[in-house]
Amino acid sequence: MNKPFNPEALEVGYDVPALPGMNEADIQTPCLVLDLDALERNIKKMGDYAKAHGMRHRVHGKMHKSVDVAKLQERLGGAVGVCCQKVSEAEVFARGGIEDILVSNEVRDPAKIDRLARLPKLGSKVIVCVDDIANVAELSEAATRHGTELGIFIEIDCGAGRCGVTTSEAVVEIAKAVRDADGLTFKGIQAYQGAMQHIDGYEDRKAKVDVAIAMVKDAVESLKAEGIACELVSGGGTGSYYFEAASGVYNELQCGSYAFMDADYGRILDRDGNRIDQGEWENAFFILTSVMSHAKADKAICDAGLKAQSVDSGLPVIFGRDDVTYVKCSDEHGVIADPNGVLKVNDKLRLVPGHCDPTANVHDWYVGVRGGRVETLWPVSARGKAY
Amino acid sequence: MNKPFNPEALEVGYDVPALPGMNEADIQTPCLVLDLDALERNIKKMGDYAKAHGMRHRVHGKMHKSVDVAKLQERLGGAVGVCCQKVSEAEVFARGGIEDILVSNEVRDPAKIDRLARLPKLGSKVIVCVDDIANVAELSEAATRHGTELGIFIEIDCGAGRCGVTTSEAVVEIAKAVRDADGLTFKGIQAYQGAMQHIDGYEDRKAKVDVAIAMVKDAVESLKAEGIACELVSGGGTGSYYFEAASGVYNELQCGSYAFMDADYGRILDRDGNRIDQGEWENAFFILTSVMSHAKADKAICDAGLKAQSVDSGLPVIFGRDDVTYVKCSDEHGVIADPNGVLKVNDKLRLVPGHCDPTANVHDWYVGVRGGRVETLWPVSARGKAY
Repeated sequence: MNKPFNPEALEVGYDVPALPGMNEADIQTPCLVLDLDALERNIKKMGDYAKAHGMRHRVHGKMHKSVDVAKLQERLGGAVGVCCQKVSEAEVFARGGIEDILVSNEVRDPAKIDRLARLPKLGSKVIVCVDDIANVAELSEAATRHGTELGIFIEIDCGAGRCGVTTSEAVVEIAKAVRDADGLTFKGIQAYQGAMQHIDGYEDRKAKVDVAIAMVKDAVESLKAEGIACELVSGGGTGSYYFEAASGVYNELQCGSYAFMDADYGRILDRDGNRIDQGEWENAFFILTSVMSHAKADKAICDAGLKAQSVDSGLPVIFGRDDVTYVKCSDEHGVIADPNGVLKVNDKLRLVPGHCDPTANVHDWYVGVRGGRVETLWPVSARGKAY
Repeated sequence: MNKPFNPEALEVGYDVPALPGMNEADIQTPCLVLDLDALERNIKKMGDYAKAHGMRHRVHGKMHKSVDVAKLQERLGGAVGVCCQKVSEAEVFARGGIEDILVSNEVRDPAKIDRLARLPKLGSKVIVCVDDIANVAELSEAATRHGTELGIFIEIDCGAGRCGVTTSEAVVEIAKAVRDADGLTFKGIQAYQGAMQHIDGYEDRKAKVDVAIAMVKDAVESLKAEGIACELVSGGGTGSYYFEAASGVYNELQCGSYAFMDADYGRILDRDGNRIDQGEWENAFFILTSVMSHAKADKAICDAGLKAQSVDSGLPVIFGRDDVTYVKCSDEHGVIADPNGVLKVNDKLRLVPGHCDPTANVHDWYVGVRGGRVETLWPVSARGKAY
């Protein structure tokens, strides 16, 4: 049945959780909130570290998927560009004006290779990873067809157990093929030990990175013996960047989570045994949630469940509160233990999500807050760009 | 630095994973695929069940968040409308032409109450749940201000431990307030036992629903004693609908997952001890993924990680294969154990996700497939509408 047009219908609904100038108390929940002061301090701190240690910092855009955050990292943190994981993400960053983009991942689908090879036409330098010699001809053909140039990193699996070759022989074999291929330029090595970043103990993480560094050094020496220079050796995350910076072989960091922090990363320990969210980095990234039911005296129900976050790395932690605890997450609700009944309906809480990357990926907007007021809205520019 | 406009740049990138008419082999991954034949059979089967048992079926739109799927459920399954969990979802369904909408949840934020009270202007009947007498005046004020009518369900917490009152006295108290409030109509009771749906054993689930049914019967009798009739008693999910249908007190079902199925629901057992995805319902909902690296002989890496699904209820299962297993999920990658090395780069696999609702919520599109070809693209209309 068709309904008559009702002009008042246009008043119904809007698609942003806040407007600039609004008080934090009026933000519609659940949504993502960035503490802009904390974010800027994190970004500047890592930028200063990289500069002091002579490292390039290519920030990981797959964490925030935001052109605005990436540009802040360039401006305040001296970032040299971004890395990201998918061609569709790289397209968003290139359109947004990021001029140096690494797809820190393999691209094998013919349609995706075609899109990747077109990307330099937007004016950005593009590097992509390779772990299979058959991929070299595919990339070369596409770049040649489009009259573009793709930079190539060879990815070493230095412990994460995902993509990447495991021997220096394989690195050399692929690098030679790249050197001889039209439309491609060998740029160096990708060696990110992703599986180690979340190990709590500092020395335990160091032991894993030491293995990675040894693999990378051997690969670089093997290439040198063939007359192939590595312009860039790239890797390192929030749980390890100081190891790569001290390695003498890495010259580019790829940290992401340091800018936002999350509950799982926050639990790992620095060299003095302190949690890294208690001094090294600040929580800048929150899910703002509201209490929407308190029908049971000792239990509050909030509006941030599985549609507002990923719980793959554990439940969120309620920021700045030790009197109430987020204890259960279902599709639409969070259950908050409130033993003393201190919460009231419509009270707002800041949740530190377990894992920032997939949590950002379910939201459309970052609400940037400073001094209790909404300063800006940034789109999660590459949200859903998983292909 | 501003870049010169390059007309070829317009060729870069597109935002849909497939186009109608395309072969399934050419779909860009990772993305959601619906087997339209299986989906239609599931929808028709549940519709036939509801009709045969004299039950209304108000399908749960929070599962698929799709106007197109909801309309298919009305057309093929005789659905009487949808339920959903958030005002922003209800707005999407109302705009899409769904004429009977239940927000099966409480709404307390003043701005959300205002939006909810405007919603009937779009031509849809709207019901909302209440579990706190203070909410009655809030809803009444907003409906009166907008000159609209809101239907009211009183929510009973019959075991899920989230929102809802726990005594018949509270139900009666709130129902009286609703009866006496302008702009509101008492419509009945919401009693969905969400926590029980995923218990494997049929008799174990029945025991939990029996408790719920007893609570609901007592509430309905208590209302009757006060001269208040329950037009609707609504609840029941994919793991329990036959219990509610046989209860003699429920008259409306709220099933959602039956239409898509997922790996976690699929594991629960019917009364004969068979998994419900082996006869009762078909898997109609998949993440299509591609192998993107096979640098290690016994391990394939696919392109569907945490940005393509929620793993809150376990890892995905590879559909129709027992020779390969999805064993690990990281942000961008799935690790697939391939002990015999049968997979090749660019091979496509269908994953049955652990949990359909939050998995649908990270994607923008459903790719509807029939007979190996793409038949349709449906937007995940209410994706991200968590507020």
